[in-house]
Order: sequence, then C-alpha cells, then structure tokens
Amino acid sequence: MKIDVYELLERVRMQKPVVHHLTNWVTIYDCANIVKVFGASPVMAHAPEEVADMAKIASALVLNIGTLTVDFIEAMKIAAKSANEKGIPVVLDICGAGATNLRNKKCYELLDSVKINIIKGNASEVARIAGENVNTKGVDATKVEMDLMEVAKSLAMSKNCTVVITGKEDIVSDGKIVFLVKNGHEMMSHVVGTGCMATSVIGTFAAIEKNLAIASVAGLCCFEIAAEIAVKKSEGPGSFKEKMYDAVYSLDKKTVGKMQKIEFLVDGKYYK
Amino acid sequence: MKIDVYELLERVRMQKPVVHHLTNWVTIYDCANIVKVFGASPVMAHAPEEVADMAKIASALVLNIGTLTVDFIEAMKIAAKSANEKGIPVVLDICGAGATNLRNKKCYELLDSVKINIIKGNASEVARIAGENVNTKGVDATKVEMDLMEVAKSLAMSKNCTVVITGKEDIVSDGKIVFLVKNGHEMMSHVVGTGCMATSVIGTFAAIEKNLAIASVAGLCCFEIAAEIAVKKSEGPGSFKEKMYDAVYSLDKKTVGKMQKIEFLVDGKYYK
Amino acid sequence: MKIDVYELLERVRMQKPVVHHLTNWVTIYDCANIVKVFGASPVMAHAPEEVADMAKIASALVLNIGTLTVDFIEAMKIAAKSANEKGIPVVLDICGAGATNLRNKKCYELLDSVKINIIKGNASEVARIAGENVNTKGVDATKVEMDLMEVAKSLAMSKNCTVVITGKEDIVSDGKIVFLVKNGHEMMSHVVGTGCMATSVIGTFAAIEKNLAIASVAGLCCFEIAAEIAVKKSEGPGSFKEKMYDAVYSLDKKTVGKMQKIEFLVDGKYYK
Repeated sequence: MKIDVYELLERVRMQKPVVHHLTNWVTIYDCANIVKVFGASPVMAHAPEEVADMAKIASALVLNIGTLTVDFIEAMKIAAKSANEKGIPVVLDICGAGATNLRNKKCYELLDSVKINIIKGNASEVARIAGENVNTKGVDATKVEMDLMEVAKSLAMSKNCTVVITGKEDIVSDGKIVFLVKNGHEMMSHVVGTGCMATSVIGTFAAIEKNLAIASVAGLCCFEIAAEIAVKKSEGPGSFKEKMYDAVYSLDKKTVGKMQKIEFLVDGKYYK
Repeated sequence: MKIDVYELLERVRMQKPVVHHLTNWVTIYDCANIVKVFGASPVMAHAPEEVADMAKIASALVLNIGTLTVDFIEAMKIAAKSANEKGIPVVLDICGAGATNLRNKKCYELLDSVKINIIKGNASEVARIAGENVNTKGVDATKVEMDLMEVAKSLAMSKNCTVVITGKEDIVSDGKIVFLVKNGHEMMSHVVGTGCMATSVIGTFAAIEKNLAIASVAGLCCFEIAAEIAVKKSEGPGSFKEKMYDAVYSLDKKTVGKMQKIEFLVDGKYYK
Repeated sequence: MKIDVYELLERVRMQKPVVHHLTNWVTIYDCANIVKVFGASPVMAHAPEEVADMAKIASALVLNIGTLTVDFIEAMKIAAKSANEKGIPVVLDICGAGATNLRNKKCYELLDSVKINIIKGNASEVARIAGENVNTKGVDATKVEMDLMEVAKSLAMSKNCTVVITGKEDIVSDGKIVFLVKNGHEMMSHVVGTGCMATSVIGTFAAIEKNLAIASVAGLCCFEIAAEIAVKKSEGPGSFKEKMYDAVYSLDKKTVGKMQKIEFLVDGKYYK
C-alpha cells in the first residue's frame, strides 16, 4: 500500500475548505498563512457569540491551547460542540501540556466535554496527557524514555481518536495502524511556529479526507517535504521560513511522489 | 486629471503621521509594519481606558473587525468617538462581514453609533453591509453578481462616507465619483494579510489627505505597485511578502508615475 | 577590560534557558522567534491562573506593556511576584510610556508593586518614567534634550536596578557604570519589532548571567551585530528582517569579537 499523498493535496487545492481556528496568539498568522498557501481558506474567530456559527460554515476546526485562558477554553468548547453536531473533525494541539496545572486540567476538560477527533502534540505533551510520567520544559520536547508508538496507539484506542506525535519522525495512530512520517528537517525546530502550523495543516487535510490518520499523514508529509526543499534554498531560520511557504505553494506531483517517506505497522508487521 | 500619487506618498514620508489601530490579531504585525515601512508611525492600543487618549495623538484611526469580540467593539466605539471629536478620519475594515450574525450586527452598531469615514471590504462583505443578498464564505471574496460600482456609490451616498471595495480591480467611491485602481497582482490573494494591510495603508494616506477617496486611491495604488514589483522578484507567497515590504520602502517618483493605473467615472463619463 | 560577548552567547546556546514572556500582541511572534533563534526556549503565557507556575520553570521573565490592558497588567504582577520569589530576573519594556495616562500609571504600579530588575525603553519612554519632562509621540523616540547617560544612571540608582535606553547608541547603566553599545544600524528603526525583540534578547542573556548590565550589553551587542550583517545582505526592511534571523543563528566567535563596539564610563573616566 502506498498512500497517494499528492492526491489529497490536490483535493485541498480543489475544494479550498474553510478551516476554523481558535489558536495560539504567537503563531496565529503562521497558522492562517500556511492554510492559505496550501490553497484552503483559514478563518480565525474566537468570540463565544460567533464561534458556533463560524464552525458551521467550516469543514474542520483547529484548537490550540498554546496561549490559553479560562475564557478562551470555554469558547473552544462552544466551537467544538458546534463542530461535533455538524460532524466536522476537531483537531486539538495540546501545546505546552505538562508545563502547568492549568494546561493539564484544561486539556482533560476539553477531552471530556467534547469529541476531539485528532490529538496532536510532541512526545512529552502527548505522554503527559496519556498519563505517562514525563516533565515538560516549556513547549519544547524533552527526551522521553518510552515506546512512543505504543503511547500513540493506546491513547488513540482509549479516546477513540487519531493521535499525532510530532518529532524527528512523526507518529500517527488511529488505534490500529501506526504510521511513521520520516520527512522533515531539524531546522524546523529552530524556528517558532512549525508545530502549530503542522496542526493547521492536519486540520486542512482532515477537512477533505474522512480517514483522519491518512489525512494527518498526508498533511505532515507535504509540509515536511516543503521544509526539506526550503532548507536547501535558505541560509538560516529566517530565510527558511519564507522558502517553506514558497515550497508548499509549488509542491507538484512528481516532487511529492518522489520525496514522501511513510512507513507503517499493522498487527506487529512493518511496511514501507 | 491625473492623480499625483507620488506626491501623497511623499507627504506620508515627510509628515510621518501616527495611525492608531484596533485591528485583527492575525495580521496585527503586518498592519503595523506596512504603516512603518510607508514611513508613518503605527500605534496599536485597545484598552478601553486609553483608546480615547491614543486616538487624540493620532492623525487617523483604523478599525478592523477580523477577530472581533463584544468588548473589543466597545473599545472601538470609544476610540472612534474620540477620533470623531478630534476630526480625524476613521477607517473600518468589515473583515468577514456576512460570515456570522455577530459580525453583521456589530458592523451595523459601529456604523450607527459613530461616524465612519471610510468603509472597506471585499465584494461580498460590502454587498452584505449594503443590504445586498450575498453569502460570505469566511473572509474570502465570493463571486458577486451585481454592479459593484453602483453598490459602492450608493452605499457611500447613503452613509455619507467613502467606500472601498478591494478585488482584482479596486473600486473607490465618495458617492459622486467612482475610481478604479487597476494595479495589483493575484499573488496578493495567496497570502494572508494583504487585505488588512491595504486598510492600514488607506488609513495612513487618509491621515495626510482630506479628500478621502483620493487618499484611498493613492494608498491602494502605491501598495499594489509594490506588489507588482515584488512578484517579479519572488518565487512564491513567502518571498513575495518580504519583497513587498522592500518594494514599498523603495518606491520612487518615476516608478509610481509610470506604473499607476487609475481610472474614474463622473456623471456616467469614463476617464483614464 | 573587554567584555567577552561571545562567551555569554555560548552560554545561552548551551544552557537553552526558558524565557517566560507576557508581551505585546503586535510583536509576540518576533519576541518568541528571536529567543528561539538565539538558541533559548521562549514561553508565552498570560492566563492569571498559570503565570506564577510558568515563571517558576523559567530562568527570566520578560514583561512588555505595548498592548497593555488592566487585566494583563494584573497577570504581569502575579508572574513577577513568582519570579521575584524564585529569584529570576524580571525585564520590563515600558513600550509607549508617556503616550497615555494609563501607560504611565501602570508602569509606576508595576515598579511599585514588584521588583523589576531591568527597565528598558527608548529615550522618551525612559525619560518619562524617570520623571523628566518629555512628550512621547506614539512608540517612536523623540529628540530628547538632556543627558541620557545621567538619566539612565540616576534612574538605575534610585530604583536599584539596571536601566537600558536603546537608540542610535544604546545606554546601559547599573547606577555605577554606564555602558555604551555602538553596534546596530538605522534600518532597525524602519521595521516594527526590533525594540521588543531587543528586550527579549536582554531577558535571554539575563537568564544566564547574574551581572544584569553585562547581560544587557552582551545581548544588545549580539543582536545589533546581526543587524549590521543583515543590512548588507538585504534590499529593504522586508528582507532585512529575515536576514537578521539568519545572522543571529550564524554568529560565531570571530565575527562577534571583531565587530563588538562597547564603551563604558566609570567614575567619570571613559574606556573603550
């Protein structure tokens, strides 16, 4: 089985889905812009009086707790309930989970009060939410001594959702299959925003593909292929960021097909 | 009649007016930066306790409802009242009007409770506020089947203000004359922020020119000439954005004079 | 005495300190990204329920009143109290002080209710807080007719802190010594964010060096050397910003040692 990543990208470009965000104030521009450059239509709206209406005209909802407040989480719940009713996917970036009690508590509250279809974080964030004993130092990943693939799979199973753990290799699991996306470049970790942008990309692909694990894998793969191309054309993290947008915009069938590096495990068997 | 666009740009650069914003959290950096790169002085302040004071030291006020909340709109009213008292122009970007009831309601509230001197939006947003029957899909323009020049002109007349409809060709009307700005490039629609930035540019030029239709036309024209120059130097939407700032900064008399494409209609007669 | 600026930069890169921010919504991305590109770990968190916890896992706290609200200042106080208890340095950017009564009042409130270790602003902002009679036009510096070095020194003495006045030449004083950082380029004043970024850089260096005047000098020096390098590789303010990030990332021992321009005054004697 080879996932036709480019075919999903083409659907994003053709359907131009509206992706509603309640996201991080640090990276809100980058979240909107990456969705736009992928060819879709970002909408950022957080007033509790309008989030339900906005979610109704969207094809996916992206939540990111990076700069959460208590009121902002309440608006997220209203938006997510509306998204649940409409049946569109809800992606949650558990940005900074583990760093403070408030973040942990609010993650659990969201997971308990609305249906989250995709949980996304780095290793320490996901481990924390999965109940593993790991410390988070701010929003950067710490070394995590455990079988991350097992963590992703069992969290996905217990929450009946898709789990994405980003890192050197991204892990995506729906509770049955575990996918590995081996694209990307370490330069992505030297610039703010790539993690939040990845979540917005996942939301964008989830808007056009019902198999949310496949959608997540395809989105991450495209985004990270663009990063690989951008690194070659840049002289540091500043120019890298610009070139990444250029590269996403220019992704074509041949490039994606040639560069995609996806592996997966089913029933203990490993496939390339 | 040929509008001396460069002369207005020179006045911006000489007078360096303070332009006070209550704007969109997505594009707030770009709104501030484009004003700065044009040579003026952006100020972003939204606390209800200080917006009246801040408007008093400004030469124009820019309001943008892109990420509105109920409280934020109240702060806008306070700022606009102060601007009205001082007699400086107030520009309103009705970003996303038509997408939710809250947005429509708050646009009408602003238009009813304070004097708005320039209303700016894309075709579907302006049509919605003008009372035409159009659906907005998020914040992107949809095809609008109507005579947009007539919509701009009659809204300007009924509200006694200047109306700007941005698009492939920008339409500016003060209720008597209808101007068309034919500069710009479609790459502007592939990157987030160009619409909000255009509003900030209009505010910047309105700060130095009392004829607000001429100010709007000149501002849009300069901004879009820069976009045309930037496209030629860029490889995609990422580098385009950077090059646009470079191009604005370097605009000179010869370039602006040669590239400006402005047409207008008075009493049914068409002039180039 | 020659300050080994590069040695401090190396410590930032090795220790990767967490720098907690409650900052300006205009420049929040740039504040985070410059800290990241310097090799440290930015955290932006402003919910009153978590700021004390977040400050506890940080090595420095950066406060910036650029887009203050009354509630935001209350969150700053909670964060600063926590930072004071832990004994980590608190940097305050008095962005826009003098522009409105609210800003002045809230600056004084912060200075009175918590320990601020470094006060940073441009000439008119610092003069205003020091009680000198100067008008601020928005957030841009105005010509200030006074001995700025004396203002910095006496404010530092009276508040028992370090004072940084940025400008063509940056002035840093701990109340005894006055340092001048003569690096930088006027292009920095044509792009939004360089002032706020400078504050974040100061916070980053204060996180790894107890002598806060030396930390401030070293941070500003590195940042401004990068700006000098970036100007040579750019065609305007757009590309300048990108190249500045690239240049910070690539700073090496030889470049920093050769380019640093620091002077200082002790007991009326002048040293290069």
